[in-house]
Amino acid sequence: MTAGNRDREGDGVADFDFETVVDGGRLTAFCRDVFLRVGMEEADAALCAGSLVEADMRGVASHGVVRVPIYAERLERRANNPRATPRIVRETRTTAVMDGDNGMGQVVGARAMELAVRKARDGEPSWVSVRNSNHFGAAAWFAEIATREDMIGFAVTIGGINHMVPWGGAEALLGNNPFAIGMPMRGAAPMMLDMACSVAARGKIIVAAKEGTPIPADWAVDRDGVPTTDAARALEGFVSPVGGPKGYALTLTMGLLSTMLSGAAFGSEVTHMYEDFERPQNIGHLFAAIPVGAFEDPGTYHDRMDKAARELRGARRAPGVERIHLPGEREAALLEARRASGVPVAASVLEELAELGARLGLERVG
Amino acid sequence: MTAGNRDREGDGVADFDFETVVDGGRLTAFCRDVFLRVGMEEADAALCAGSLVEADMRGVASHGVVRVPIYAERLERRANNPRATPRIVRETRTTAVMDGDNGMGQVVGARAMELAVRKARDGEPSWVSVRNSNHFGAAAWFAEIATREDMIGFAVTIGGINHMVPWGGAEALLGNNPFAIGMPMRGAAPMMLDMACSVAARGKIIVAAKEGTPIPADWAVDRDGVPTTDAARALEGFVSPVGGPKGYALTLTMGLLSTMLSGAAFGSEVTHMYEDFERPQNIGHLFAAIPVGAFEDPGTYHDRMDKAARELRGARRAPGVERIHLPGEREAALLEARRASGVPVAASVLEELAELGARLGLERVG
Repeated sequence: MTAGNRDREGDGVADFDFETVVDGGRLTAFCRDVFLRVGMEEADAALCAGSLVEADMRGVASHGVVRVPIYAERLERRANNPRATPRIVRETRTTAVMDGDNGMGQVVGARAMELAVRKARDGEPSWVSVRNSNHFGAAAWFAEIATREDMIGFAVTIGGINHMVPWGGAEALLGNNPFAIGMPMRGAAPMMLDMACSVAARGKIIVAAKEGTPIPADWAVDRDGVPTTDAARALEGFVSPVGGPKGYALTLTMGLLSTMLSGAAFGSEVTHMYEDFERPQNIGHLFAAIPVGAFEDPGTYHDRMDKAARELRGARRAPGVERIHLPGEREAALLEARRASGVPVAASVLEELAELGARLGLERVG
Repeated sequence: MTAGNRDREGDGVADFDFETVVDGGRLTAFCRDVFLRVGMEEADAALCAGSLVEADMRGVASHGVVRVPIYAERLERRANNPRATPRIVRETRTTAVMDGDNGMGQVVGARAMELAVRKARDGEPSWVSVRNSNHFGAAAWFAEIATREDMIGFAVTIGGINHMVPWGGAEALLGNNPFAIGMPMRGAAPMMLDMACSVAARGKIIVAAKEGTPIPADWAVDRDGVPTTDAARALEGFVSPVGGPKGYALTLTMGLLSTMLSGAAFGSEVTHMYEDFERPQNIGHLFAAIPVGAFEDPGTYHDRMDKAARELRGARRAPGVERIHLPGEREAALLEARRASGVPVAASVLEELAELGARLGLERVG
């Protein structure tokens, strides 16, 4: 396994790679066709392709088309069910538990968040928990579904690989569990928190290891759970949580929220997304939709948000800082720009996509 | 203003201070009597006193009796309303907006969380937003109210002082906004995430400044927003968020959640808890109660939580680590121990309490 391949298992992308700018529409069509060839239906294939390319456009390449080869492999080997029918297994007026039928996380997650939004349309906030799903890509993509209807959206998933230890431990029992909270903004992209719980993406450690440079002491621990600045030893170990015990508590809580309300896999039950093609992953998620209108006249809410945003953007700046961004603003601007100008994709990723496409009878893109 | 005083404005306590172990019951009675003398009613005074002493017992001294003098001063000067009547100003089946009538945050917050729990008892998760409240102490104390009824509890507040900058900024527009998520555990303390969003408590920077030792580069920025290892310059500046832009997004989101759904103060509207006794602070909170039973048979949920806890506690340990703790476990153990053995309080805090008590005609404690 090369460093380049290893990187695709982490939550970051290599930046030691050349990039080619590809047309977004063509890239999306290519990814959709891949998913069709490995057994998915049209609408689901298009949804997955759109979600992945959008992540690349937003600058979140770690959740972009870099994932197509592993998704395709899992689908081909039926580790993921290409024709899943997610179903509601339990329901109250404002809650539901969904069984994803081992479908693609993007498809299952979209169904679950749409259900949450539907339930919340009458003004009562809703929650939907999910089991038997898979890696769902970028959490923000789901939270944004809610923000489009003037709801605060919350999306969390347990990770598809255990990369972290309980604080003081030396055994990977925790995913780097990402979550997103999106708050609607008037005439603009939502205010979007979207974070995983590690200090640094594993991809950055891979880059350091390749370059032979040391890493900061708070990025990772070695296989014995001891902090290390040696990138190679860090790769044999585990990534460290933001803020030490705070990040441990945060990723643990996000993992438990994603699984305990649905019966999804947790801890040692979590199989390795890139190594285990026999057992379904039984990934869990949790979604919430909170209609602003339950609490406040939406106009008043938006006036407040506008004022807050103006104030933050207009704050006195540190030397050399050109602009203060709201969370998610940079990504939204990139998305818009790249819709027009195309999306940069790492050469190694394009090469891998080309190989996959060739095997499936598809023309290469980029 | 001495360093010792400065510390009481931050979110940490000085550890350059001697401690005296005080009986918890006597300390609680003393604090209750202080609150009675400055105009509060019996039940509310007892609630505030209990909440503060419990924080000390849990080892969270920054939210403990160290706050009694400022609370008493605010109450005496009617910056906080000692006889507040929180009321519901808007309500749906599962939500409410509460106006705290400028009451003590502990009192208002408890009413709000109790309302959330009441609304959720029929199996539908609830949310309660709050405005016109004040500093509420430890977030975990509220989340735990929900966990006692087999609900997941969420509590967040905007801070009472702006200590942080938007990422890239050099102007304090953000509080170090703490939040807690508690998940019920069978026969044990809840799994409790309770964190503020800074890397280090401001109290630790005060200690370093006093000792003349440098601080890590990620703890704070100076008054121009530039990272500094000089503790004295850090004190003129702002505390830094965990994980850089992640922590900025996190504290901003927590601040917005605490305020935008109720009309509480945000950004430049936030007055300084220790310096402004004229204007009510209009602090905002947000609470949620999620009954486990909406999603799952509680027995099944608890079996899963038990298994997860066993696995985490039993994980392979890093060298020198005696025990792996779940979030909140250490605090719960301390609480139990200190209920029996007494609670250590810094000498400088006891001295300040004694002065306050003398002025109010109360015997000193400790």
